[in-house]
Amino acid sequence: MNTYPDPIKKLVDLLTKLPGLGPKSAERIVFHLLKDNGEFSASLTKTVAELKKSVVTCQRCYNISATNPCPLCSDQTRDQGTLCVVAGPPDVLAIEKTGEFHGVYHVLGGVLNPVENVTPDQLTIKQLINRIERPSPKIKEVIIATNPDLEGESTAMYLARQLKNTPVRVTRLAKGLPMGSDLEYADEITITSALKGRQAV
Amino acid sequence: MNTYPDPIKKLVDLLTKLPGLGPKSAERIVFHLLKDNGEFSASLTKTVAELKKSVVTCQRCYNISATNPCPLCSDQTRDQGTLCVVAGPPDVLAIEKTGEFHGVYHVLGGVLNPVENVTPDQLTIKQLINRIERPSPKIKEVIIATNPDLEGESTAMYLARQLKNTPVRVTRLAKGLPMGSDLEYADEITITSALKGRQAV
Repeated sequence: MNTYPDPIKKLVDLLTKLPGLGPKSAERIVFHLLKDNGEFSASLTKTVAELKKSVVTCQRCYNISATNPCPLCSDQTRDQGTLCVVAGPPDVLAIEKTGEFHGVYHVLGGVLNPVENVTPDQLTIKQLINRIERPSPKIKEVIIATNPDLEGESTAMYLARQLKNTPVRVTRLAKGLPMGSDLEYADEITITSALKGRQAV
Repeated sequence: MNTYPDPIKKLVDLLTKLPGLGPKSAERIVFHLLKDNGEFSASLTKTVAELKKSVVTCQRCYNISATNPCPLCSDQTRDQGTLCVVAGPPDVLAIEKTGEFHGVYHVLGGVLNPVENVTPDQLTIKQLINRIERPSPKIKEVIIATNPDLEGESTAMYLARQLKNTPVRVTRLAKGLPMGSDLEYADEITITSALKGRQAV
């Protein structure tokens, strides 16, 4: 016996296709499921099966939601004229946790990535332009909140170019030293950003 | 919106109960499943559901298997008189991969662990003693191959005490420096083991 029985191998192979799971962690999960009395596996299969059925994409901001439009887009107390453009749903959550943003979102569904063949037409860029061109609600500002990495920066630059001829104000999240960091160990680009973006105290 | 829609939260909560998955990795898996066209989720739920049905425990060695007895126990070319005692199925696989062991196995189903309340009656220790006391096949040697860590060592000591009054020879896997390691960075206990176990060349 140089391998596990087929049903185990099959599940390990499937699990390793999920992000962040290697063969060893997949094996541990399978053995965990084997030890379980069946209740956990049953609720896992049920929840996975239900996931797709009950989660929809909001047709206004393209965030995932249980309703369409999503609670954020339907909330009339929010400033519908300020649009924060993010790569994915986890970014919406991260910004919402601050409690500091009261506008609405636009979820791109990823970032431009030539290596992984992600082109502008695979993101919701056309839908973003449509939202901006619509007379109501009037968008006054677009805050581009993609990650400060290679793909996020090039996506931001691409979007800024696309929005150049529109009357909206286009901004980008500030770059600088993160809280609790140490100047001694910060990289040059971050320090350069922190210097360029320095503010009066 | 400070949290994800309920179906997502529910699946994230379930997934974090699996070994090695934290909230962030669970989230990444859920978003991966949401992007999938449904095929992957379907085969995942199917494979999980099938797992328990098609995997049994061999009633001789307590390893997992598609058949009972397992292929290893049924293999008459193997030495049924030499028993290698391991904690779990992955250990059987690791030893089988060397191709150097031609006896049979006994899978304990874990190791003794007072912190996690794993007591001798939760392991297949009674079944091990039964196997040794049975007249045929006659067990001549028991090789204890639990991990060289705190729990593995104490389990090995417990087993050795239990087998003291039986006529079988009880051995333990050698401890020492692993291949490719550096004496300079090895810990004291490993070096002590390597010294004690030194062999003539």
